[in-house]
Amino acid sequence: MRLKIITFKMLRTHTCGELRINDVNKEVTLCGWVQKTRDKGSIIWVDLRDKYGITQLILEEGVSEEALLKKASKLGREFVVKATGMVVERLSKNDKIPTGEIEIKVSSLEVLNASKVPPFTIENETDGGVDLRMKYRYLDLRREPVRKNLQLRHQLMKETRAFLDGQDFIEVETPILIKSTPEGARDFVVPSRMNQGEFYALPQSPQTFKQLLMVSGFDRYYQIVKCFRDEDLRADRQPEFTQIDCELSFVERKDVLDTFEGLVRHLFKNVKGIDIGEVPHMPYSDAMKYYGSDKPDIRFDMQFVELNELTQNKGFNVFDSSELVIGINAADCAEYSRKQLDAITDYVRKPQIGAKGLVYVKCNADGTFKSSVDKFYTQEDLKAWADKMNAKAGDLLLVLSGDTDHTRKAMNELRLHMGTELGLRKKGEYKLLWVVDFPLLEWDEESKRFHAMHHPFTSPIPEDMDKLETDPGNVKANAYDLVVNGVELGGGSIRIHDRAVQQRMFDALGFTKEEAQAQFGFLMEAFEYGAPPHGGIAFGFDRLCSLFGGSDSIRDYIAFPKNNSGRDVMIDSPSPIDQGQLKELGISLKK
Amino acid sequence: MRLKIITFKMLRTHTCGELRINDVNKEVTLCGWVQKTRDKGSIIWVDLRDKYGITQLILEEGVSEEALLKKASKLGREFVVKATGMVVERLSKNDKIPTGEIEIKVSSLEVLNASKVPPFTIENETDGGVDLRMKYRYLDLRREPVRKNLQLRHQLMKETRAFLDGQDFIEVETPILIKSTPEGARDFVVPSRMNQGEFYALPQSPQTFKQLLMVSGFDRYYQIVKCFRDEDLRADRQPEFTQIDCELSFVERKDVLDTFEGLVRHLFKNVKGIDIGEVPHMPYSDAMKYYGSDKPDIRFDMQFVELNELTQNKGFNVFDSSELVIGINAADCAEYSRKQLDAITDYVRKPQIGAKGLVYVKCNADGTFKSSVDKFYTQEDLKAWADKMNAKAGDLLLVLSGDTDHTRKAMNELRLHMGTELGLRKKGEYKLLWVVDFPLLEWDEESKRFHAMHHPFTSPIPEDMDKLETDPGNVKANAYDLVVNGVELGGGSIRIHDRAVQQRMFDALGFTKEEAQAQFGFLMEAFEYGAPPHGGIAFGFDRLCSLFGGSDSIRDYIAFPKNNSGRDVMIDSPSPIDQGQLKELGISLKK
Repeated sequence: MRLKIITFKMLRTHTCGELRINDVNKEVTLCGWVQKTRDKGSIIWVDLRDKYGITQLILEEGVSEEALLKKASKLGREFVVKATGMVVERLSKNDKIPTGEIEIKVSSLEVLNASKVPPFTIENETDGGVDLRMKYRYLDLRREPVRKNLQLRHQLMKETRAFLDGQDFIEVETPILIKSTPEGARDFVVPSRMNQGEFYALPQSPQTFKQLLMVSGFDRYYQIVKCFRDEDLRADRQPEFTQIDCELSFVERKDVLDTFEGLVRHLFKNVKGIDIGEVPHMPYSDAMKYYGSDKPDIRFDMQFVELNELTQNKGFNVFDSSELVIGINAADCAEYSRKQLDAITDYVRKPQIGAKGLVYVKCNADGTFKSSVDKFYTQEDLKAWADKMNAKAGDLLLVLSGDTDHTRKAMNELRLHMGTELGLRKKGEYKLLWVVDFPLLEWDEESKRFHAMHHPFTSPIPEDMDKLETDPGNVKANAYDLVVNGVELGGGSIRIHDRAVQQRMFDALGFTKEEAQAQFGFLMEAFEYGAPPHGGIAFGFDRLCSLFGGSDSIRDYIAFPKNNSGRDVMIDSPSPIDQGQLKELGISLKK
Repeated sequence: MRLKIITFKMLRTHTCGELRINDVNKEVTLCGWVQKTRDKGSIIWVDLRDKYGITQLILEEGVSEEALLKKASKLGREFVVKATGMVVERLSKNDKIPTGEIEIKVSSLEVLNASKVPPFTIENETDGGVDLRMKYRYLDLRREPVRKNLQLRHQLMKETRAFLDGQDFIEVETPILIKSTPEGARDFVVPSRMNQGEFYALPQSPQTFKQLLMVSGFDRYYQIVKCFRDEDLRADRQPEFTQIDCELSFVERKDVLDTFEGLVRHLFKNVKGIDIGEVPHMPYSDAMKYYGSDKPDIRFDMQFVELNELTQNKGFNVFDSSELVIGINAADCAEYSRKQLDAITDYVRKPQIGAKGLVYVKCNADGTFKSSVDKFYTQEDLKAWADKMNAKAGDLLLVLSGDTDHTRKAMNELRLHMGTELGLRKKGEYKLLWVVDFPLLEWDEESKRFHAMHHPFTSPIPEDMDKLETDPGNVKANAYDLVVNGVELGGGSIRIHDRAVQQRMFDALGFTKEEAQAQFGFLMEAFEYGAPPHGGIAFGFDRLCSLFGGSDSIRDYIAFPKNNSGRDVMIDSPSPIDQGQLKELGISLKK
């Protein structure tokens, strides 16, 4: 150990978490917050709390001085106190806390700061609503579960750096004040005072800079970095978020996947003590076909089975007119009641799911079938469905139909819903998956042009390079996403490193030569000076923290998050600025 | 070692820096950039470079295939190449590089990317001017000295984190989109689309957030964090810069100084192998009195000596009418020529130094004195000066006079100038110093009010608390700066943690109650809920890197710096944005 440990006691001799039975008879000084007091008249107990734990203070009539007792009796919740006294063995021990065998017989007590009664209780379970806790975030952060979330975040940062440093990556800080580009999501912009009428943009990612570092020969780069996106916010989005951003030179896809599977394996092993095993690869087309999603939750099976052939031409017009008929097998659910089946039907009919209806088939215990379409299908027909879906007696088949995209999307929702209902999406179980071979481009009806599915720097797979002009919609990208339990944890690609290919990509995206030059000329020029083959990945760090912490909300893992209007209600930001500032920046507000 | 090392070879079997004589007869594949080729007709040598080193490739007529020779003969500087071949022992070895005993007999050669002729040579000493190297920063970063600067930066980051993690600090990310406050330097602002007419600001430091983390009981916080200041730029300033930002609870000044002296000691020891010894403390008043600067370079002595008493009432009106007469002793400089003395006089008369003139006294080898004021002062007078200044025969006394502030400032410049001239400011020697007991407030003539010398959250020293209203100009701050070789490396203070004191501070600064509430109400309110005593420090990380790297410019240690107009000339930012973007943000440009 090279570090000389410097005491972190300071005003205190010990923290509130460290005294034990073998410290009895030591004189100590503790500092902390009053968690609670119990005043029995002749005895006062005070639970003193800091980050490290809770220690009980005791003051007794006849033993402690009267002035001291009086002072202690006036302590309120969350007062900040410095207490000196002797460590003594407790009469009635508390085996729920590590310091529960001792207490401090207080000989002197100093109130370092008083506290008003907090607006909600500072306990593991609090009575404060979300809005109140956001306004007083600094008090919410005092609660152990919230503080532990940020300690987990720190641990994940440390382990990420330990792994990547150990693999010879170099962390390089890229700029935050960069250039606005219309491609992709909306930028936050920053008016320049020294260059009036011009703006910086805050980066949505350090994409072009990390590629330039590869052109510079840095070989392996990473950064844990803030990124920004001015989007309308959903519950799991923040205008500023943190990425683990990485790039490597002289690599092919396999090298990148192996390296970062290594990172994720390291994190699971060292932070959660879990061995994730080998991570399977799944082509995007299979993910869509069997799960209706590019981020399938593979903690449970329940894959889609296509039933078009078995269901058509039996007089059931709904199926006959459908592009796709797919079913999932909800094992052991044949006993579902009318009410339960109605609830499922209602679920898929919700506007955000959008199915018109649901067909079910109960595989009864006696080998018969009962379905909502008995009018059209014989027992043999239904048996054929059940066979194709590997259903056994006691299972329940749920079938949706319609056009391919919508039906898959709806069935994905239904599958996840059933998985949740049936307890198949277990917390604490982690199933990882690489989804690969994404389409390079997707058609956008609104703008009538192709958009890059990942971003315009993603390379086509070598075999599809020729199709960039002839069949752009069918070009596969050399891209990959890491999916954990149905959540996209990271994604990346092998990049284009050739100027001509990059130009063809911009052409495919409908950029004019001038637009491409104005926005990304520096990158294309860089490709002319010996750019190595390279690729990389970025992980959503906030998401990673919430995944490891077992919460659905990334906000719980951000010290000072913003609400859905992009507002920090604690500091009351954003806020108006004065006319002088606007004038200096050369801008004015639209009336 | 918990890490399973994943090969970073990828397209290659080895890097260009690792092959040695005992690798002879191995078949290897290397990737890299062509540093240079020597084509002797029958033999072609190629120096292949990557981040890890340089390895020589060899192709020989009659041995290598003709097609291969032809391909090699066409390689230009900075081409990216993949070469496979056998490691062989060199006939003529190069002991200047670690791979100099071997070369690779190439059997196959693939050009991964061609390169235009770079606009400047990619060598340790380049022919490229600053502007050109900024525009092609990605090529400048290929040069070893520039890349090594960023590797040093990474190493300093790693060691900083290792130390602070080891001292139980927790790294917490604070927000980048915060609230604009008129106090201090100018903010960069970000218009909010979702809250039109309102703006975020980019943080000049995470000051209030780290204080809130102390209120939250985090006990010890740090962050290596980007900060922003919209100031007119000097050579050593950047609009975005990086800080090591730290805060601790339940501490007094000594605790903070000990802790961070520990950090700096760790960095010097582990990065430069230097033991910095104990770091002296110097009151601000002494720093000004003896060095005329709050950041004295104490690598050399040459302290100011006050000569008022010895110089007055001898008929020399210049001194008689001066508030301050001070001298420094330039040892062994009595032999300076007329020309040298004129040069020094010219130096102090420069507008940026601003002295009206210079008085010198030569302490001749024979014990006599020769001065520029012999008309007014006898040999005895001059001897008294020399005695007071501890001058010996052969020394040169340089004396300035005028009002206290300007004279000290000018003498500080002269002292540094002489220190440089005399080789007393040695590169590679590091002298550290804590400057303490700064004034809390400084009077600003322009706005006719006091400004906070550090910031409004700095606590007065306890003894001066009562003077906040009665004698604000003489209140000392519980603040400290760490100075290394005349450069301010970091600074901080014990903070105010009491609402009433914070309010008094805002009063002293001339804030109305409403202004204080609107800007910092959240912090004052937080102080009412049990804020612990706390204090902290922030180090300029870019400056730290340049100090360790031995350069005067922080730009050399930033991957993608901006120029003095705040412009990134590589990506050409800032830049105009389109009308649609402006409209969405609810702002317009002033004509």
